[in-house]
Amino acid sequence: MSLHPARGRPLDGIVILDLSQAAAGPICGSYLAAMGAEVIKIERPGYGDMARRTPPYATAHGIRAQRTVPEDISSVVLKRNRGKKSITLDLQKPEGLKIFLDLLPQADVVLENFRPGVSTKLGIDYERLIELKPDLIYCSITGFGMSGPYKTWSAFDTIIQGMTGVMAATGQPDGPPTKAGLLVGDTVAPLYAMIGIMAALRMRERTGLGEFVEVSMFDCLVSMLWDEPLEYFAANDIRMRSGNRFLRMAPWNSYPASDGHVVICAGQQDHWIRVCKLIGRPELVEDPRYASMEARLDHVAEVDALVEAWTATRTRAEIVERCQADSIPCGPISELPDLIADPHLQARGLLKPLMHPLHGAIPGAHAVDFPVRYGNMPPPDPAPAPMLGQHTVAILQERLKLSREQIDKLVALGVIDGE
Amino acid sequence: MSLHPARGRPLDGIVILDLSQAAAGPICGSYLAAMGAEVIKIERPGYGDMARRTPPYATAHGIRAQRTVPEDISSVVLKRNRGKKSITLDLQKPEGLKIFLDLLPQADVVLENFRPGVSTKLGIDYERLIELKPDLIYCSITGFGMSGPYKTWSAFDTIIQGMTGVMAATGQPDGPPTKAGLLVGDTVAPLYAMIGIMAALRMRERTGLGEFVEVSMFDCLVSMLWDEPLEYFAANDIRMRSGNRFLRMAPWNSYPASDGHVVICAGQQDHWIRVCKLIGRPELVEDPRYASMEARLDHVAEVDALVEAWTATRTRAEIVERCQADSIPCGPISELPDLIADPHLQARGLLKPLMHPLHGAIPGAHAVDFPVRYGNMPPPDPAPAPMLGQHTVAILQERLKLSREQIDKLVALGVIDGE
Repeated sequence: MSLHPARGRPLDGIVILDLSQAAAGPICGSYLAAMGAEVIKIERPGYGDMARRTPPYATAHGIRAQRTVPEDISSVVLKRNRGKKSITLDLQKPEGLKIFLDLLPQADVVLENFRPGVSTKLGIDYERLIELKPDLIYCSITGFGMSGPYKTWSAFDTIIQGMTGVMAATGQPDGPPTKAGLLVGDTVAPLYAMIGIMAALRMRERTGLGEFVEVSMFDCLVSMLWDEPLEYFAANDIRMRSGNRFLRMAPWNSYPASDGHVVICAGQQDHWIRVCKLIGRPELVEDPRYASMEARLDHVAEVDALVEAWTATRTRAEIVERCQADSIPCGPISELPDLIADPHLQARGLLKPLMHPLHGAIPGAHAVDFPVRYGNMPPPDPAPAPMLGQHTVAILQERLKLSREQIDKLVALGVIDGE
Repeated sequence: MSLHPARGRPLDGIVILDLSQAAAGPICGSYLAAMGAEVIKIERPGYGDMARRTPPYATAHGIRAQRTVPEDISSVVLKRNRGKKSITLDLQKPEGLKIFLDLLPQADVVLENFRPGVSTKLGIDYERLIELKPDLIYCSITGFGMSGPYKTWSAFDTIIQGMTGVMAATGQPDGPPTKAGLLVGDTVAPLYAMIGIMAALRMRERTGLGEFVEVSMFDCLVSMLWDEPLEYFAANDIRMRSGNRFLRMAPWNSYPASDGHVVICAGQQDHWIRVCKLIGRPELVEDPRYASMEARLDHVAEVDALVEAWTATRTRAEIVERCQADSIPCGPISELPDLIADPHLQARGLLKPLMHPLHGAIPGAHAVDFPVRYGNMPPPDPAPAPMLGQHTVAILQERLKLSREQIDKLVALGVIDGE
C-alpha cells in the first residue's frame, strides 16, 4: 500500500476549544490533534495545566527529575499536547469569559474535564453554550459522571481503579488489591470520549445539531471489567484476584525462566496436547486429571507445576522459540529494558523523539504515536507541544481581530499572559 | 436535557461484515452495533465463534459453569454480540467465499481479527477486496500488527500484557510481574479500532475512497504505558512495579482500613496539609522531612506509615467521608460484592439484564452498556445476541435474493448451517 498525504486527515478543519488539564482530557485532545483537528488548549495565565509541573521534566539537558527554569516542561505534557496550540485565558474574569464566548462560534467542539458544577459556575456549561451555538459538540470527561452519589468526588486514576473493581481483580490471590500499572482510567476514558465526539460529529452532519457527550472514568472501567456477569463470580465466591492465572483456562499463567518469566496461554485442548509433548510428558494427555479444561482447572496447581518444571531451567528466548515453533501461545515477560530494546517495538516504528518546543528532540526520550495505522494515511506528524500561551496573541489577532492595544489591555488586566 | 430518539443513531445505515471471533474483534463489533450499524457476524458452520464455548454459560436455569445443551451460550458472547446478526458461512469453500463476495457491495466495513496472512489465504484480504469495492473500509485487529518479527505469533491478552511492560509495571515491588486484572489488551484495542473506523468513514465521505485500518494490541498497550519517557526510568533504575504507590506523588497509595482498604491520593501540597490536620498531626506540615513532594517521596515509607496509623483503626466509610469532607482525594477499594452493591453504579444506570436469545433475561446476570452517554441520544437498546446462524436464511434471502432451493443446496454442501 502507498500512502496518500494529499488526502488530508479525518478532522481537518475541525476546531476544538480544549479546557481540560491533567490527564484524561488532554490525552483526548492529543488524539483530536493527531486526527488533524486544530486544538486550542486554554490554560490559566501564569500557571497553565497543572500537569506542566509533573516530573520528570524535559530540559535543555535532557530528562531531569527537577524543574529549575520556567522552560522545563513535564515530559507527559510534551507527549499529551503534541500538535496543540496554547492560549492563556482567565475564565473567571469577565473579559476572559467574553473572549471564550467570542471564540465559540469558530469552534466545533468544547472539551473539558471539570468536576460537575464548575462549568456552570464559570458560565460555560453546555446548556448555556448550546443556546449560543446550537451545533456545538460539548464533551465532558469526569471521574464519576454527571449523576450519582459520587459525582462531585475528587477522582484520580488509582481511586477509580479501586472503586471499579480493577484493583480487586489485580494481584496475587493471597495479596492485597493491586492497581494495574498503567493509568487505565486516565487513558481509556479519552478513547471513549473520542468515539463519542466522532459520533456526535457524524450526527451533526445529518441533523445540523450539536450534542453533549459525557464520559466518566468510573463507567469506562466498570464496562471493561464487567465483561462477564460479575454477580455469578460473587455468588459462587470466585476470586477475581488470581495472580497471573486466568479463571477459565489452564495452563494459562506466568512461569519462571532462568532469566525472568514467560507467559504461556494454552487456551485450547490442542495447545495442551502440544504442551505435554514439549515438556516431555506425552503420557499426560491421557491422564484423567488433566484430560479436559475442567479437569485441568480442578488441578491447576499441579498443571502449573508441571509446566514450571520445564520452564524454570530454560531461558525466556528458548522457551518462547520452542513454544512458538509448536504453535503454543507464549511470550516473554519484558521488564523495562527488554521493552525498550524490543526489536518488534523498533520495527513497528511507533516511537518518535520527544520534542520540546524550544529545545527540539530531547536526547534519550521518546513518545508513542497514536497507535491506529492506516493503509493510505501517513502517521501523524504533529508540531511539538506548545509553551504556555505560545499562541495567545496569534489566535486573538487572527481569530478575533484584536488590536495590539486591546491585547496589551488584557495583559494588564491579567486576563492573558504577556509575551 | 431531553432525549431525542427520532434523531437516530450515528451509524444508522452502515453495514459491517464482522469476521472476527474471540474478544477484541467482537467487542469492536458490539460498539459498532451500539452506534446503530447493522453488524452481520459471520461464523463457522456448526461451531461458530470460539468464544461461544467459554464458561460461564447462560442457560435456561441461569448462569452455569457447564454447557449441557446447544442452547447454552457463553455469557461473554451474549454481552459482546448484542445487537448483531449471525450468519454461518464456510469461507474455505468456494460457494461460501462467493456469498461473502456477493455480500461485499452491500457492506461499508469489513472487520476481522485474523492473524496476518490468513485473510490472503482465504482470498478476502484488503488488497483483493478494495479492487472489488474501492470505498471499502477494512479493519484488522491483531495481537502484534501486520509487520515486525512477532507478527505471526499467537496473541492472548496475558501474552501482550507481558510483552508490553504492563505486567512489569503491575504488582508489588518485591513480587513478580503481575497482569492487570482486566483484559486490557482485548478491551482497549477495539476502542482504537472504533476510532479508526469512524475516522475512515469520515474520510470516505470526503474522498469517496476506502481505507485499511490497522490496530494491534501490542501497539495499543505500549502507547498506554509509554505515557512518560520510559528510557528515563530505565536509565535511572526507577522501578515500574510500585505496588499501589505512584512514582511521583506521596502520600498516594492504598491503606488498610478496619474493614478493607482505601486509596488516598494527595497529589498536591494543599492535600498534604489537609491530611496532616485530618490525622491529628498538624505539626508535620512544618517538618522538613515532609515539607515538599520531593521530601515526602524521599521518606515515602514514613509518610505512608503516618497515614496508615490513622486509617487502620477506621472503617472505609468513615475514612472516605472524612477525607471527602476535607477535599482530600480518597475512595474505598471495592471488592466484588461492594461493586455489585455500589449505589453509584446503580445510579449510573449502566447495568442492563443479560439477555439470552431464547431464554430472555438471565436471572442474576447483567451486562454493561457502552459507556458513552449523550445529552440527546438515548442509550443503545440492542436486540439480544443471536443464536449461531440465526439470521443466515433471512440475510441470504433478503440481501442476495437466494431461493429456498439455493439455500438448501448450500446447507447440503456444508457451506451454511440449516435451520
